[in-house]
Amino acid sequence: MKYGLVGASGRLGKEVTDVFSEAKHSLVYSVDITGEKSKDKPEIIIDCSLPEALLKTIDLINKFDVPLVIATTGLSEKDLSELKKLSQKIPVVQSYNFSIGIQILLQLTKVAKEKLSGWDVEIIETHHRFKKDKPSGTAKMIQNIFSGKEINTTSLRLGNVAGDHIVSFGGLGEVLSISHRALSRRTFAEGILLSVEFALKKKNGFYTFTDVVFEKEK
Amino acid sequence: MKYGLVGASGRLGKEVTDVFSEAKHSLVYSVDITGEKSKDKPEIIIDCSLPEALLKTIDLINKFDVPLVIATTGLSEKDLSELKKLSQKIPVVQSYNFSIGIQILLQLTKVAKEKLSGWDVEIIETHHRFKKDKPSGTAKMIQNIFSGKEINTTSLRLGNVAGDHIVSFGGLGEVLSISHRALSRRTFAEGILLSVEFALKKKNGFYTFTDVVFEKEK
Amino acid sequence: MKYGLVGASGRLGKEVTDVFSEAKHSLVYSVDITGEKSKDKPEIIIDCSLPEALLKTIDLINKFDVPLVIATTGLSEKDLSELKKLSQKIPVVQSYNFSIGIQILLQLTKVAKEKLSGWDVEIIETHHRFKKDKPSGTAKMIQNIFSGKEINTTSLRLGNVAGDHIVSFGGLGEVLSISHRALSRRTFAEGILLSVEFALKKKNGFYTFTDVVFEKEK
Amino acid sequence: MKYGLVGASGRLGKEVTDVFSEAKHSLVYSVDITGEKSKDKPEIIIDCSLPEALLKTIDLINKFDVPLVIATTGLSEKDLSELKKLSQKIPVVQSYNFSIGIQILLQLTKVAKEKLSGWDVEIIETHHRFKKDKPSGTAKMIQNIFSGKEINTTSLRLGNVAGDHIVSFGGLGEVLSISHRALSRRTFAEGILLSVEFALKKKNGFYTFTDVVFEKEK
Repeated sequence: MKYGLVGASGRLGKEVTDVFSEAKHSLVYSVDITGEKSKDKPEIIIDCSLPEALLKTIDLINKFDVPLVIATTGLSEKDLSELKKLSQKIPVVQSYNFSIGIQILLQLTKVAKEKLSGWDVEIIETHHRFKKDKPSGTAKMIQNIFSGKEINTTSLRLGNVAGDHIVSFGGLGEVLSISHRALSRRTFAEGILLSVEFALKKKNGFYTFTDVVFEKEK
Repeated sequence: MKYGLVGASGRLGKEVTDVFSEAKHSLVYSVDITGEKSKDKPEIIIDCSLPEALLKTIDLINKFDVPLVIATTGLSEKDLSELKKLSQKIPVVQSYNFSIGIQILLQLTKVAKEKLSGWDVEIIETHHRFKKDKPSGTAKMIQNIFSGKEINTTSLRLGNVAGDHIVSFGGLGEVLSISHRALSRRTFAEGILLSVEFALKKKNGFYTFTDVVFEKEK
Repeated sequence: MKYGLVGASGRLGKEVTDVFSEAKHSLVYSVDITGEKSKDKPEIIIDCSLPEALLKTIDLINKFDVPLVIATTGLSEKDLSELKKLSQKIPVVQSYNFSIGIQILLQLTKVAKEKLSGWDVEIIETHHRFKKDKPSGTAKMIQNIFSGKEINTTSLRLGNVAGDHIVSFGGLGEVLSISHRALSRRTFAEGILLSVEFALKKKNGFYTFTDVVFEKEK
Repeated sequence: MKYGLVGASGRLGKEVTDVFSEAKHSLVYSVDITGEKSKDKPEIIIDCSLPEALLKTIDLINKFDVPLVIATTGLSEKDLSELKKLSQKIPVVQSYNFSIGIQILLQLTKVAKEKLSGWDVEIIETHHRFKKDKPSGTAKMIQNIFSGKEINTTSLRLGNVAGDHIVSFGGLGEVLSISHRALSRRTFAEGILLSVEFALKKKNGFYTFTDVVFEKEK
């Protein structure tokens, strides 16, 4: 497949280029702070950039009329409603976390929560010492599962850990835990590839990575 | 409620007595190697004994015509078919493991397995140094979920550990694990109490602890 | 050996009675809230009671002139100086935690700390939901090893966990952890037995459980 | 410092080049399967290659008369005795694992082993699915600490895990574990940098990475 990439020179952009070229896909259009390179019309646009680049991305979608997969973090409410408007015309997949394992962890947490009401719950996330926000976005996604209940959440900062998340349920005679460890950023690029394959088969609509992993039709 | 107990002096039998008396239930009939004690007609029979006691248990059920919850391990195919015959008359709940958390672990493993085909799987169980069978019955229950696929299973024997089970799924960029730790044998007695409450509300039929936890009607 | 026990009917007192009778030692003197029982002169006094019982214990030591092993928690500075005065006459072993594994964890943490300066450190302790103080006394003992440096310490409260402690060191390319899990209160009774054997061989002096485990002469 | 590198294009060779250039050191001589590049006389030679390249490395040392740090794995007894002969003239640092954390884990395991005789021991190592040898070289280094005693050792293969090692000691009331997780190959390159700094300050002699970390003089 021929793809276009916004934010090609960023950390995630580079991982995407590696994973996609191993899968024999061709980068035919790219844009980053150093400029624009165009060889052919892309069949899909991937955005791994910053919110500031969103206008450029929307221009590209309007120009090429192809699906969008967007991994940009820190989008505003206004940005998201722009994307939803766009999704009336084409398929848009948007997520802050493209790891399959985290999607499964969220799913398993929902199942466990239903059956283990009355058990204590603890969320623990560990990241590299350079991460400034606490708790992690993913920890917040886990908290949201327990809507209306405050869940004790711990943030550990250790060396260069890519990202661990644990949800523990404690009963009087037993402890059940669901844990996830990201080994590298490559995993996110693989989730983006999955999302691209998903988007190419869909009609217009706004999808999340949960839809991609659990194949919910809309 | 008034209950009868087969195997009252065993390790699990004692835990059952403790948990049931805290819940204000009365032991009105008991039998073990030291003999039989009868104060009143029981509303339910619990069997925490050995396969050798099964005939006695069946006699009791026929005599009192009440439900049965049976935690005896090492039952033969013939024993199980006797129990199934019995269940045409009364509700029977049978399981080798009455921990709620293990039921959830099994359930979560099924969900994860569906979405993570192609990932490596490792099962690890840790028990006290006195446990002779490898792998544990619970590890076998986990293996059964991956029918037709051989799953690498590790048995660790460490001091006096009550029972840990971990299922790990490894992808190229991430690892997802579901783990369970039994803190004490008390948890099994609590599962038996739950099963008794379940059996008292049911008509005849053969149930497992999975049915109790997931409230599937039959 | 013939031993006397203050606080015989408490949780730890009962574990001590079990462990000591398995090791063929005889309880010849006991005292608790229900009164005093005396069969013979003890060779050692063990105190598993509350600070309020300390005066009684000191009377007993003065009367029998035998060593003391004391596991009472929450002692005041004044209590400790009374014990030190007593240790001029007889051997006294005093500790808030009689687990061998925790002593090893403390020792290992000291070694690791020396070589891993510049690495991030996290202390995590997990206990049952009924524990009210945070962090645990043991976590404070670990913190004290890093004198002058504030160490991020997390307290998790999960079901009925007897007590887990983890010290993690994080460098840019690796994480090293030392962890301890108490399986039951029995472990503390075994540490008290070790301390009794130690005290019976010593001259007068004030000892901690660290001395017992690492056999430092004084 | 000006350094020479044998095996410059290998996986570890590339990490070494990255770490050393960040530390402002200059690669002035390199050799790999594509040939030889020489800009200046190196002050030290680093070998991250295969045993087949050892003759070339020995030639280089004889030519430049500078220290050697060698990370090549799978060396034969004959290779090692060649290196020891070389070390009569210059300092040689040789190891199969240049991670600081693993050195600490080995050290802590020695300390724990001394005090926990009679406890059960389990070694568990987890690596990526592509690793063919079992158990890992590092697991063997841990086994060697328990000389004369066979230690149960488990090898898990999960996705792309860089390398986890756990040593667990189990007593009847408690479990003590020492665990290490490599986050990336970069950690080994940093250990090589440390070894280079060590070698440049030493006289002739044969050193291991243990000597580097624990600064034992010879």
